[in-house]
Amino acid sequence: MADKPTPDLGRATAEMLARIRQRKPLLHHITNFVVMNDTANVTLHVGALPVMAHAREEVAEMVAAAGALVLNPGTLTPEWVEAMLIAGRRANELGIPVVLDPVGAGATTLRTQANQRLLRQLKIAVLRGNSGEVGALAGMGGVVKGVESVVDVADPIKVARTFARQQGIVVAITGKQDVISDGERVVLVDNGDPWLKTITGTGCMSTTMIAAFCAVEPDHLLAASGGLIAFGLAAELAAAVGQVAKPAFGPGSFKVALFDALYNLTAEQIVAGAKARWL
Amino acid sequence: MADKPTPDLGRATAEMLARIRQRKPLLHHITNFVVMNDTANVTLHVGALPVMAHAREEVAEMVAAAGALVLNPGTLTPEWVEAMLIAGRRANELGIPVVLDPVGAGATTLRTQANQRLLRQLKIAVLRGNSGEVGALAGMGGVVKGVESVVDVADPIKVARTFARQQGIVVAITGKQDVISDGERVVLVDNGDPWLKTITGTGCMSTTMIAAFCAVEPDHLLAASGGLIAFGLAAELAAAVGQVAKPAFGPGSFKVALFDALYNLTAEQIVAGAKARWL
Amino acid sequence: MADKPTPDLGRATAEMLARIRQRKPLLHHITNFVVMNDTANVTLHVGALPVMAHAREEVAEMVAAAGALVLNPGTLTPEWVEAMLIAGRRANELGIPVVLDPVGAGATTLRTQANQRLLRQLKIAVLRGNSGEVGALAGMGGVVKGVESVVDVADPIKVARTFARQQGIVVAITGKQDVISDGERVVLVDNGDPWLKTITGTGCMSTTMIAAFCAVEPDHLLAASGGLIAFGLAAELAAAVGQVAKPAFGPGSFKVALFDALYNLTAEQIVAGAKARWL
Repeated sequence: MADKPTPDLGRATAEMLARIRQRKPLLHHITNFVVMNDTANVTLHVGALPVMAHAREEVAEMVAAAGALVLNPGTLTPEWVEAMLIAGRRANELGIPVVLDPVGAGATTLRTQANQRLLRQLKIAVLRGNSGEVGALAGMGGVVKGVESVVDVADPIKVARTFARQQGIVVAITGKQDVISDGERVVLVDNGDPWLKTITGTGCMSTTMIAAFCAVEPDHLLAASGGLIAFGLAAELAAAVGQVAKPAFGPGSFKVALFDALYNLTAEQIVAGAKARWL
Repeated sequence: MADKPTPDLGRATAEMLARIRQRKPLLHHITNFVVMNDTANVTLHVGALPVMAHAREEVAEMVAAAGALVLNPGTLTPEWVEAMLIAGRRANELGIPVVLDPVGAGATTLRTQANQRLLRQLKIAVLRGNSGEVGALAGMGGVVKGVESVVDVADPIKVARTFARQQGIVVAITGKQDVISDGERVVLVDNGDPWLKTITGTGCMSTTMIAAFCAVEPDHLLAASGGLIAFGLAAELAAAVGQVAKPAFGPGSFKVALFDALYNLTAEQIVAGAKARWL
Repeated sequence: MADKPTPDLGRATAEMLARIRQRKPLLHHITNFVVMNDTANVTLHVGALPVMAHAREEVAEMVAAAGALVLNPGTLTPEWVEAMLIAGRRANELGIPVVLDPVGAGATTLRTQANQRLLRQLKIAVLRGNSGEVGALAGMGGVVKGVESVVDVADPIKVARTFARQQGIVVAITGKQDVISDGERVVLVDNGDPWLKTITGTGCMSTTMIAAFCAVEPDHLLAASGGLIAFGLAAELAAAVGQVAKPAFGPGSFKVALFDALYNLTAEQIVAGAKARWL
């Protein structure tokens, strides 16, 4: 841990966000049908440019222009996994960070094996999943039903650190508290809000956030932490809208407020509101 | 009719909703691209858990964990229909209710035949369609243009009851008045609001509602009625938001309010607001 | 130019919109996964009926009932392009206008060639793209990154007019100022708002608007101009909601307000607010 930097997480997040807004990196997504619209919007709201492209004939060419590649096999078929491998290999050749969201790993053999194959055959920068998904891939507990973690791993810090070290990647386990590790350093993020559980795709959105930060920050532990801090803080600000303004606030209003807050997020809000620490 | 229960529909709906929220059943959807995000959200807002999965390699394994299976061939190809058959057969073996939404049946030969095949080869719990779609499948009139019923069947009560009896299923024809029958009993539901016609996917959302109720209630006539009462009532509450609060209320605001209302729906609102009766 | 009419654009747009709302034409979309929900909603909000259908087995039958066909290869594969060709050929035989949105042309070889093939093998009524996309297809400059025009063509009026004349189609290049030409006449539209750039799919939505207008107006230059005037004006009205009402207005709120404004758009608003002129 001595060798690696552990900067102030709020300030670092604000700086990375400023870089995203200035550079507008392209985020190439090969992702699931459920969230494509939402993750494209999150990409724009955080200041990056989205493209969704999955044809085996074009993914290698498309990813070459990208600042990061998101692989999200949430509605996978074998053909889509092949496209992910083609794009991922080209991203690896070019040094473009690849962020993997193993949606539903543990729920079916196809999902578990497809994600294991992506982890084995590609150099992944960040793996972001819920407790059950990461536990299933790490072989360290947790139960997934559909795409939900219905039994969490007992010790997420240990799972994240151990699996990160084994794989040589950054692992982010998101939940009430987010745990992010590169195998040595560990960051804990307490930003977020229970409203996030009431709408679909918030895990996928947080993966897109991580990809945006990875596109401008080579320290992927810092990038993953920054993406989760910014997203969790936007959720808190959105929930605050509900507490003040609307008598009939619900998940529809929350989602609108979440996108508004993400777009309007300021450096001041981040520095004041980041609830994150190095372990 | 003497044998089968005809409980108070408002109270029964409130009780079924409480069971959904407590048990959180998984609803496995094999559905169309247009509504995947919306129906996943409706699933969460009513208190259940969504998963969208269509790979032939995993649907039999995924459905085994589900409380109900939704088949919605709204953007069908032959490959997707095959996946629906695989999942449906496994659901049938396990006694998991299968809800079919025959989007656009009657509009093209492919759609009509695919839905007929699903009806013939699977044991369907509830068929939910608009008047033209059900009329096309029953061979009893109605005209579909795209996915819209442009000419309704003359006597929806007769069509629902006759087709339900022939097929041994529950048939729900939704429209200004919803008609639900198991071949013997008939329920009429007058909850709903014209705003529902201004946004896409409300038929598909109502099918998801029915599936959530079927996951916790073996009397599928009661379940289908409950799903439609709750959804229609949420639409009324959402429309009421528009009458009070917003000068420029429109379909965008209505959709947000609909999701808010669905999530916030109380037993008191249902008992007071249900407009449903046994014929 | 002497032969062709150049009516008042505001009044003509109001009249075309009234016809859409009265006739409710079906708009058959073969479009990308990201925007399917949004473009179906825009179709309803402008007063038409949407259907999304891409199976090669049904597209020829489906399009026969349509008032216009939208081809949008934003998440293309070779199979989807085949379906577009089948539907497009049938539309051509029946005299149904075909509107092409060449999403990401110029970004990859697959996208450029697929759109060139659609232009070559089909009779296109209107091509609507951003500056880089149209420039790439016309071979007249512009650079596309993902689906974004990152370098615009130097002279959009010249590009639109030249490419329209070469191809015998209407070309609409959208951006800060929209330029529409049939090779002779040129319309410039200044309606629109910078908020449109903050959400995904607004280009695709404007293409759907053009298709709705083409379904009721055989002068496709006028139809394309009307669709862009109405859409741009709805964006202005939505942005105005933000200036007045909401302290935390952002892209989530803008999208809701855009759909509300589009649905509520009146002839008076159009006549008063159209910012369009014949060159």
